[in-house]
Amino acid sequence: MSAALPQVKPASLGKATVNKSSVLDSPRWVELRKLEWTDEDGKDRLWEVASRKTTSKGGIDAVAIAALLKHPSRPLSIPIILQFRPPAGGICVELPAGLIDESETPEVAAVRELLEETGYGGEAFEGRIKVVESGGTTPSDPGMTTANMKLVTIEVQLKEGEEEPKAQLDEGEHIEVRVTPLKELYAHLQAYEKLGYHVDARLHHYAAGIDIAHRYLS
Amino acid sequence: MSAALPQVKPASLGKATVNKSSVLDSPRWVELRKLEWTDEDGKDRLWEVASRKTTSKGGIDAVAIAALLKHPSRPLSIPIILQFRPPAGGICVELPAGLIDESETPEVAAVRELLEETGYGGEAFEGRIKVVESGGTTPSDPGMTTANMKLVTIEVQLKEGEEEPKAQLDEGEHIEVRVTPLKELYAHLQAYEKLGYHVDARLHHYAAGIDIAHRYLS
Repeated sequence: MSAALPQVKPASLGKATVNKSSVLDSPRWVELRKLEWTDEDGKDRLWEVASRKTTSKGGIDAVAIAALLKHPSRPLSIPIILQFRPPAGGICVELPAGLIDESETPEVAAVRELLEETGYGGEAFEGRIKVVESGGTTPSDPGMTTANMKLVTIEVQLKEGEEEPKAQLDEGEHIEVRVTPLKELYAHLQAYEKLGYHVDARLHHYAAGIDIAHRYLS
Repeated sequence: MSAALPQVKPASLGKATVNKSSVLDSPRWVELRKLEWTDEDGKDRLWEVASRKTTSKGGIDAVAIAALLKHPSRPLSIPIILQFRPPAGGICVELPAGLIDESETPEVAAVRELLEETGYGGEAFEGRIKVVESGGTTPSDPGMTTANMKLVTIEVQLKEGEEEPKAQLDEGEHIEVRVTPLKELYAHLQAYEKLGYHVDARLHHYAAGIDIAHRYLS
């Protein structure tokens, strides 16, 4: 259905593997809960749900960041990240994202995670980082989990000739950043899929929205 | 940050409530697994993950449907649904979606779910329903679960004067359909949030992509 896909460079993350999967009895981070609920007809019913044990004080688990990189002479771009995710058993393509630390606001967490995972932020970008939108609190998969998140949009003003910044990763964290033209995001994600990577559903929907707007609404 | 929000009608779903949440020992639908994995540095590590026990033979849990309603004289629209979701403890706003039945392809499941949840499909729409895109297999929340899904885009050709079809819900299923102009989807979701509803993260990202395309790329 698509034209030729863009050339994307495979990850050079090194090799990681899942060796064994077993049923877990004493979870530390995640738990299963039984919800007893009453439906619209007054009938008592049960629902099984997975929850994080670490939800922030504000009741929001995580933020994802759509960072719009505004360059004087290049097309508007967005940094996406590649990382091995054990639940997917392979490399995932995602927006920069992370859990909200205790007592952080979602916006502060978004600015911090963007700096840590991509390098955009900190002193070098003083006055050139602006949170332009903070979305509602959205459940990630409300049929199955209580996990929720906020999508925060941040504008980053770049300068001509400026080098791509370095991420500030923790030891043992392996992430690769790919700055991608926003207009071609959907085609790039398709190209990463061809390499066998798993595109996060939320990033896929974001790119599909951009693509649909071009094809049906312009 | 936004202009006046559109008027959206509150759901008339009736009242449903979550009465109790307790730790679950013998789950039927969901389970917690421990993954033993080796990271890129060769270090053995653990990851906790929630999985559905019901993943389809094809290895894909679910489909969501972006149904583009093409009307001769009205703007391009998309049906979204309102339903009470116990994990969110309230009414969620989502794309039509559902689990893939055994031996169904994702595209067949998408056409079936669209008919069941919104009424678009079946004999009355013979020859006017077309699957135009079937996205990759995308993990819904790859830091926490193995759940995955496909976004399927379906074009529906409407006729002038045609009435909105009736959903074909199972007994005990309570869903309301809202046909929403695609161009205004993001503003409508913000209006539903003001009513206290929870917008699914994937639908939010889809609408945010459409909105970003308008504001930054046109």
